[in-house]
Amino acid sequence: MAAYGERIYEGKAKILYKTSRGTLVHFFKDFATAFNAQKKQEFEGKGAANLKISSMIFEYLKRTGIRVHFLKLIDERSFESEALTMLPVEVVVRNILAGSLAKRLQEKEGLPLHPPLVEFYYKSDEKGDPLVSDDILIALYKQSPADLKTLKEMALKTNEALKKLFDRAGLILADFKLEFGKTASGEIILADEVSPDTCRLWDKVSGEKLDKDRFRFDLGDLMTGYRQVCARVEAALKEVA
Amino acid sequence: MAAYGERIYEGKAKILYKTSRGTLVHFFKDFATAFNAQKKQEFEGKGAANLKISSMIFEYLKRTGIRVHFLKLIDERSFESEALTMLPVEVVVRNILAGSLAKRLQEKEGLPLHPPLVEFYYKSDEKGDPLVSDDILIALYKQSPADLKTLKEMALKTNEALKKLFDRAGLILADFKLEFGKTASGEIILADEVSPDTCRLWDKVSGEKLDKDRFRFDLGDLMTGYRQVCARVEAALKEVA
Repeated sequence: MAAYGERIYEGKAKILYKTSRGTLVHFFKDFATAFNAQKKQEFEGKGAANLKISSMIFEYLKRTGIRVHFLKLIDERSFESEALTMLPVEVVVRNILAGSLAKRLQEKEGLPLHPPLVEFYYKSDEKGDPLVSDDILIALYKQSPADLKTLKEMALKTNEALKKLFDRAGLILADFKLEFGKTASGEIILADEVSPDTCRLWDKVSGEKLDKDRFRFDLGDLMTGYRQVCARVEAALKEVA
Repeated sequence: MAAYGERIYEGKAKILYKTSRGTLVHFFKDFATAFNAQKKQEFEGKGAANLKISSMIFEYLKRTGIRVHFLKLIDERSFESEALTMLPVEVVVRNILAGSLAKRLQEKEGLPLHPPLVEFYYKSDEKGDPLVSDDILIALYKQSPADLKTLKEMALKTNEALKKLFDRAGLILADFKLEFGKTASGEIILADEVSPDTCRLWDKVSGEKLDKDRFRFDLGDLMTGYRQVCARVEAALKEVA
C-alpha cells in the first residue's frame, strides 16, 4: 500500500498515509476494538462498510453546509482528506441516554435528552480519554474558549443534519462521537469518520442496536448491523436526491 | 435538644431543626465521614470548630455582599439560618488540582488552574453524587439554565472572597464545595457550611494539609488541623476589622 504515500499513523481501526499532494489517505481496517482496545476482533467487510457509510455521510454533511475533511473516495477501503492539525478532544453528542453516561448516572438507558447533551473527552489513550469540562480543557490542556464554542456549535449542527438523515433511514441516533481538526489557516473542520463505530444507531421500530454495541456487548453479528446501516443510509440519500 | 424545634433531618455531620419562627437550627456533630460514609470517626471538638469557622466565614461573606443563609450563632454547637428549598447540586470550585479530579485525570496534584474550574455534582447518596454538566442538570434533573448561571457566578464570587481571606490566614484554598438554596421569593443564596470539611486548605509555607484530607488519608490528627484553621481565620478577620 506504499502507493498511498508515507504511512504516518496506525490506530485501532485506521491507517493514515500522507500523500505527495500534502493530503491524507485513510485506510479502513477490518478490526473492531472496544473498552480501550481490551476487546478486539477482525470482521471481514467492516472496513469497506465503514468507509462507504462515512463517505456517504461526509458528502451529505458537506451539502448541508458543514465543513468536512473528506475529499474523495480512493478505492473500496480508503478515502482522501485534507491534512489537519487534530484537536485533542472527542466531542460526544447525546440525544438519548445510553452507554457510559447511563451507567455513571445510574439512570435507565433510553431516557430522551432535551436539549441534546454535548460532552468533551480529552484524547489520551494513556489516561483513558477522561471526560473533561470546557474549564478543564482551557485551564489544563491549552484549548481556547473560542475553539470549544465552535466545536459545540458544529457538533450540534451536525447532530441536526444526522438526526434527519438517520430518521429517514428508519434509525434513531442515540449518541455519537466526532473529532475535529484545524486547517493551516486555522479553520476548524469535521474530521475522522461517522459510522456505526462512532454512532449509536437503533432501529426505529424494533429498537435493535445496529452499531458497535453489538460487538461490545455481544448482541449479535456485527456485520449484519453495519450492512443494514449502510443499505438504509444509501436508500435514504437516494430518496432525497 | 428539643428546645431548638422540630428535628427534620440528620445528615453525616449535622442535624437540622425547624424553629417555631420558621427558621432552621444547624447542630454540628462531632463525626467526620469520608468516601460516601464508608469511613467514619468521632472527633471531640470538631462540631464546635466547624461551627465557629463557618459562622465567621458566613459573617465575612455577608460583608462582601454575598447573600448567605446564616442568621446568628445559637450556642457553641449550632447556628440559626433562613429556611430554604435546597438545590440538588454541589458546586465545586477548584483553584489548584487535587483530590478526585487529579486522580480521574491522572495528573499531578498541585497544578494551578487558571481560570478556576467550577464543577457541578448531582446530590444523590444513592447514585454517589455523580459529576454532571449544565446540560445534564437541565435535560435530566429539571434545573434551569438561569439558576445554573447564578450558581456559577456566586461560586466564583465566593471564591474570590475566600481566597483573599485564607491568603491573609496563611492558607492556600485548593478547592471547596458549596451548596445553595432558594428563598420563598426565589432568590438563590449560599447555604450549608464553609469549613475544613468542605474546603481543601494547605499551609502556604509548608504545604501541610489542614483539612478533612487529614482524616481521609490518615495524614495526621484532624483536630490539630481544624484548630489551626479556626485560630488563623479568626486572627485574619481581626486584622481587617
